[in-house]
Amino acid sequence: MGQRVLIVGGVAGGMSAATRLRRLDESAEVLIFERGPFVSFANCGLPYFIGGEITDRAKLLVQTPERLRAAFNLDVRPRSEVVAIRPAARAVDVHDLATDRVKTERYDSLLLSTGAAPVVPPIPGIDRPGHFTLRTIPDMDRILDWVRTKSAKTAVVVGGGYLGLEAAEQLHRLGLSITVVEQLPQVLAPLDPEMAAHVHIELRKQGVTLHLANGVTRFEAPTGEESAAASTVVLACGERVPADIVVLAIGVRPETKLAKEAGLTIGPTGGIKVDAHLRTSDPHIWAVGDAIEVTHGVTGQPALLALAGPANRQGRTAADNICGRPSVYRGTIGTAIVRVFDVTAACTGANESLLKKSGIAFEALHLFPNSHAGYYPGAKSIALKVLFAPDTGRLLGAQAVGADGVDKRIDVLATAIAARMTVDDVAELELCYAPPFGSAKDPVNLAGMAAQNVRAGDVSPVQWHELPALVANGAVVLDVREPKERDAGEIPGSIGIPLGELRGRLVELPKDREIVVHCASGQRSYNACRVLTQHGFRCRNLTGSYKTWKAAIDGLVGE
Amino acid sequence: MGQRVLIVGGVAGGMSAATRLRRLDESAEVLIFERGPFVSFANCGLPYFIGGEITDRAKLLVQTPERLRAAFNLDVRPRSEVVAIRPAARAVDVHDLATDRVKTERYDSLLLSTGAAPVVPPIPGIDRPGHFTLRTIPDMDRILDWVRTKSAKTAVVVGGGYLGLEAAEQLHRLGLSITVVEQLPQVLAPLDPEMAAHVHIELRKQGVTLHLANGVTRFEAPTGEESAAASTVVLACGERVPADIVVLAIGVRPETKLAKEAGLTIGPTGGIKVDAHLRTSDPHIWAVGDAIEVTHGVTGQPALLALAGPANRQGRTAADNICGRPSVYRGTIGTAIVRVFDVTAACTGANESLLKKSGIAFEALHLFPNSHAGYYPGAKSIALKVLFAPDTGRLLGAQAVGADGVDKRIDVLATAIAARMTVDDVAELELCYAPPFGSAKDPVNLAGMAAQNVRAGDVSPVQWHELPALVANGAVVLDVREPKERDAGEIPGSIGIPLGELRGRLVELPKDREIVVHCASGQRSYNACRVLTQHGFRCRNLTGSYKTWKAAIDGLVGE
Repeated sequence: MGQRVLIVGGVAGGMSAATRLRRLDESAEVLIFERGPFVSFANCGLPYFIGGEITDRAKLLVQTPERLRAAFNLDVRPRSEVVAIRPAARAVDVHDLATDRVKTERYDSLLLSTGAAPVVPPIPGIDRPGHFTLRTIPDMDRILDWVRTKSAKTAVVVGGGYLGLEAAEQLHRLGLSITVVEQLPQVLAPLDPEMAAHVHIELRKQGVTLHLANGVTRFEAPTGEESAAASTVVLACGERVPADIVVLAIGVRPETKLAKEAGLTIGPTGGIKVDAHLRTSDPHIWAVGDAIEVTHGVTGQPALLALAGPANRQGRTAADNICGRPSVYRGTIGTAIVRVFDVTAACTGANESLLKKSGIAFEALHLFPNSHAGYYPGAKSIALKVLFAPDTGRLLGAQAVGADGVDKRIDVLATAIAARMTVDDVAELELCYAPPFGSAKDPVNLAGMAAQNVRAGDVSPVQWHELPALVANGAVVLDVREPKERDAGEIPGSIGIPLGELRGRLVELPKDREIVVHCASGQRSYNACRVLTQHGFRCRNLTGSYKTWKAAIDGLVGE
Repeated sequence: MGQRVLIVGGVAGGMSAATRLRRLDESAEVLIFERGPFVSFANCGLPYFIGGEITDRAKLLVQTPERLRAAFNLDVRPRSEVVAIRPAARAVDVHDLATDRVKTERYDSLLLSTGAAPVVPPIPGIDRPGHFTLRTIPDMDRILDWVRTKSAKTAVVVGGGYLGLEAAEQLHRLGLSITVVEQLPQVLAPLDPEMAAHVHIELRKQGVTLHLANGVTRFEAPTGEESAAASTVVLACGERVPADIVVLAIGVRPETKLAKEAGLTIGPTGGIKVDAHLRTSDPHIWAVGDAIEVTHGVTGQPALLALAGPANRQGRTAADNICGRPSVYRGTIGTAIVRVFDVTAACTGANESLLKKSGIAFEALHLFPNSHAGYYPGAKSIALKVLFAPDTGRLLGAQAVGADGVDKRIDVLATAIAARMTVDDVAELELCYAPPFGSAKDPVNLAGMAAQNVRAGDVSPVQWHELPALVANGAVVLDVREPKERDAGEIPGSIGIPLGELRGRLVELPKDREIVVHCASGQRSYNACRVLTQHGFRCRNLTGSYKTWKAAIDGLVGE
């Protein structure tokens, strides 16, 4: 018999580690303790079972203890809660929830994959019946049971993060009227606000009521006039929203109680601190997944990033190290994606607020390239944002929202960030092109080229939020779109000269004032800027142009 | 007035250069000569207009001379053929096809974007009526006209490359019976044969008749018994195939006549030789696109790679250099994609035959991961192959065939190749994961991890084509799939022990013979190999397992 490895937590990171351990060491004794009734279940699939997109419940159970024993000779113990770690004795106390007995198990190596728990803040009434978090299969079952038995018609989802929006979408699919309440002025905090604005627009288009910059003050029992199987949700703005069901998707925090009580070091973000080998402050204890603090791959700063992909890879890395194969976890860059009705939003790397907080200089560009060749049917515009270092050109982050091709572009840009590519590298990437799939210049190439133009000093970008101050300081706004495009909507106070007429109408423009040029997406206005600059005008390009400006106006203002 | 730049060829590379030149230099005089009637047309879209997927002919004309003059102040001259370059005089002779007059135009810089011409070998009867190549809009119009006026019911497509298969698919869409004739034993030469086999299976499933390893001996006038509006195609095997239309998609060769006559250096592959700045052997002449020889980004060897993406980026690079901004073209890695009915095939980097020819050591692995989480509806298996250097781990190439998610994975792997990533880097990539889009371990991660396992010596792969020799030398084939999977088809002579029973049935296996283990895709058999190795057996894993073996048997054998 080889070493005895105990694993706390049988989902994602824990189970990845267990199977890898077995592959590396046939003689190791590997025990997995899972508090819940199920191991290795598809937690990312839970919302989709609620909405009925996933119909086969068995599919959510990716593995069972029986199959894991047969294929991997693993000793999997569901309903077994580790209640204490005793590092000096190299032992844990395990509470068997079936027998209600506590047993001590010794280990040579211990792996903590305790995950994260839903945040449930002390809002008055938050523990009323009909309120649910969604993290486990029993949570999912309880939500479905409540929806059915109460014939729920209205739902309030508290929190506009990934899970909140997935829950909103899937409850909407069941026919419920949905209200999403979010304390921040935007949903999906990893996106910058003008990118989240595209998601706001989609949510409202689908009939979801969005309350942004608006917290919940309390949950009340409905009054006689209010029909609600769960609560009346009282918002900070005073509005009362009756809900037949309330889903609390406010966020998660690392489950560190065991680690703390065992004296393991906790990082400044509140996650378990680990070294590059995923070892905790105790040399015999490793930790992975949502419970740990990682190093952000772009900022180099400690970060909490509860994501399934990193958790799984960390499990593999930890197993290697436990088996004496030195293996390094490289950090997390926060690549994530969510489908919200007919659009997909995804991001990778750092966003503006994280870069500012980290003191990293950046430039931001917006583009609206087609998902594939415009001449082939079905091409959809992708709202694409890239962030890069003006000095080195290094790619720092990317965000995209659109109906098609979003995942592909963010995956390519995530790979570019992992490779520490510059925008020059990105401009030169050689990606698949045939009309149904892309364009000869892929959106990713266009983003790189646009950034090259900025770095070369060929054009100076203006952000949507900088426009009012520039206009107040005397800047002229020039719209180089065609008249029929202007008729459909224009930036107040702008003057219109179509690009094709620009060279012949230069006399109409002032040489003593800054000119902010825009078109629909920023491409024609870039061409216009090149004309103007070479003719001695001072000009800048409104990045993302009318589309970004309009999304910000429609999606962010007027809450 | 700035410098005078002449561009020969007004599609892809030529037009990308022209617009970039204008952006960089408002004062340059830029003239574009195009032999055909159209510039900047969507040549990759031509097959899709034939089949009716693209219905708006105007969309194929991405730009017109009028719009290019208005927006970019370009002097675009269609139906103007440059018939001679006189480098000493820095001038070209241009034949105006409308007036039939030849005029001399001087230049400061000359850019050749002459493209490539369809190969039309001297097969007897090849110039019979009803035979067409497909490279230009007039070609497309002629094909459609012939199909309509002759009420064509049968088509023979000569050549199973990208264009041949696109033409086959689109003519099939019009209701024609399709025969594809290919001299090689496989379609899509950039794929390795067992990957092309998946495409063969799809083509046959769709009712396309495939003649592989079978050239055309001659095209004859149909006899009285043969109904054919075009020709009876006589194959090397002797078979006679009547065709109402024949599409010649045998390949292309660089259009270098002008360059050769001007004394420019031609490379060993037959393309115009250029330096890293895309300058030819004449310091005032640049060249881009299908006409040039590029450096292959993986092998470092000269290569001909006629692809639209590289052509467009080369145009930009050449323009930069012509304007005095030093810019380097980094080479081409051959990323390409084609949709063939319900599957997509794509590749990037080098394939096995190119690596062998270049003397680069490689290891190859096959996987069949799902396009997204298996528990979410619609997941499709992707046949994925990766090639990597056993010593350094550097990723050398990748190929994929599948119904969904192929473009994304090849784009990510193309980015990894561009970044000179190793399989370790690929294993650690952090890609988008939500159930509709991917898996916590993306197919790309799995490929990297599988390669890591090989490099670590944890498992030794066997290729499908190595199996017969191993068996002849006494190897045992062990199938670790479940009985019901074996019932649906098995490798002759294999013995079956499901993975879950393996540890208990080790006594049934010989310790003195090599054991080749397989399952459906190679994942369970990898786990089995780890068990066997640690119990003292000599074993290897059949990479791609039953799926690759079966595709090779069904798709390659029995022509």
